[in-house]
Amino acid sequence: MPEAVTTMKAIIQRVTKASVTVGEEQVSSIGRGLCVLLGISVEDTHRDAEYIVRKILNLRLFEDENGRAWSKSVMDKEFEVLCVSQFTLQCILKGNKPDFHAAMPAELAEPFYNSILENMRSTHKPELIKDGKFGAYMQVNIQNDGPVTIELTSPTGPTDPKQLSKQEKQQQRKEKTRTKGPSESSREKGGQRSRQDPNASSGAEGDVSSERES
Amino acid sequence: MPEAVTTMKAIIQRVTKASVTVGEEQVSSIGRGLCVLLGISVEDTHRDAEYIVRKILNLRLFEDENGRAWSKSVMDKEFEVLCVSQFTLQCILKGNKPDFHAAMPAELAEPFYNSILENMRSTHKPELIKDGKFGAYMQVNIQNDGPVTIELTSPTGPTDPKQLSKQEKQQQRKEKTRTKGPSESSREKGGQRSRQDPNASSGAEGDVSSERES
Repeated sequence: MPEAVTTMKAIIQRVTKASVTVGEEQVSSIGRGLCVLLGISVEDTHRDAEYIVRKILNLRLFEDENGRAWSKSVMDKEFEVLCVSQFTLQCILKGNKPDFHAAMPAELAEPFYNSILENMRSTHKPELIKDGKFGAYMQVNIQNDGPVTIELTSPTGPTDPKQLSKQEKQQQRKEKTRTKGPSESSREKGGQRSRQDPNASSGAEGDVSSERES
Repeated sequence: MPEAVTTMKAIIQRVTKASVTVGEEQVSSIGRGLCVLLGISVEDTHRDAEYIVRKILNLRLFEDENGRAWSKSVMDKEFEVLCVSQFTLQCILKGNKPDFHAAMPAELAEPFYNSILENMRSTHKPELIKDGKFGAYMQVNIQNDGPVTIELTSPTGPTDPKQLSKQEKQQQRKEKTRTKGPSESSREKGGQRSRQDPNASSGAEGDVSSERES
């Protein structure tokens, strides 16, 4: 099987309202803002998370007061964000059957996902960031306004000049993994990467993601 | 600016129900099935469309009668599909501002999108395929069941062996464009391409629809 370059993926829907129900219980709801479905891959680090959070909160998906489209962000408008973990976005098709081995395993993804929520809360306003219920079977009711839907991936796409260097880093990590216990290496990966990358705090580049056919 | 490889994109959400409202009027609704937001790029052809339609209808996103996940397709279950054109999926970020020049212009995207719906209707059952209202400002109400969300792109990704040949074709088309009037070349592109491509009828190279918001 060829080496896949995996990235964090977010499907961002501009909403009039959105809510999450588990069983009979509504666990959260928002009014105007963004509903984000977030898929974390096995390769993702805090750098990917920081990129995605910054983009979600700063993307200009709303009108300004004069009705000019694509002018204001969810932070500018003080609108809400409903963020729901969605491992199925890390799907690789085997023919018509989805395979989710590229998704970060739940026991690692849950604390990582919670750190992403914390990042959003501290960047925006804590009370404007809502959550689903990690790992639960949910009904997510999304009133997509427009519709306006944006797909974001962390910056390792096909047209991104950093792709090669990310692939190289993955290779390096892989080599490290071979000489260490798997739990230690996976724990270390985020910190290692952000230390060695001088661009970690620089701006942003969006890209297009791609998928594999069987 | 680097050359981007654009592809048709579909965001597929498994739903308990979904509907589209324009103003006060509900223009369509479905029960269990799939809500598809479909973004057509300027580069897409009928081959991309055929691939995407085939995948949407055959993806195993539903349980079988024994509760085994990822076993049955929307066609197997005779569930419905609500397909809504969504040009914003063809987004290229310029900083935090979305740019939609990669989306197929509405006057080309609308007939192309309609041909995709026709393809779905003839492959599944006509009465099980519902539509939004192309180009209108809609509220799309999506009850995402799980949630389960899959992103599909037509097969031109970085790890796809067909990528080079598609890029070569794009280059060829571009060279043609330079020697002709722009309106003639854009009109001719689909036909020209399918004539010169021996694989045109084997699989899929389609386009993505877009509506353009002001």
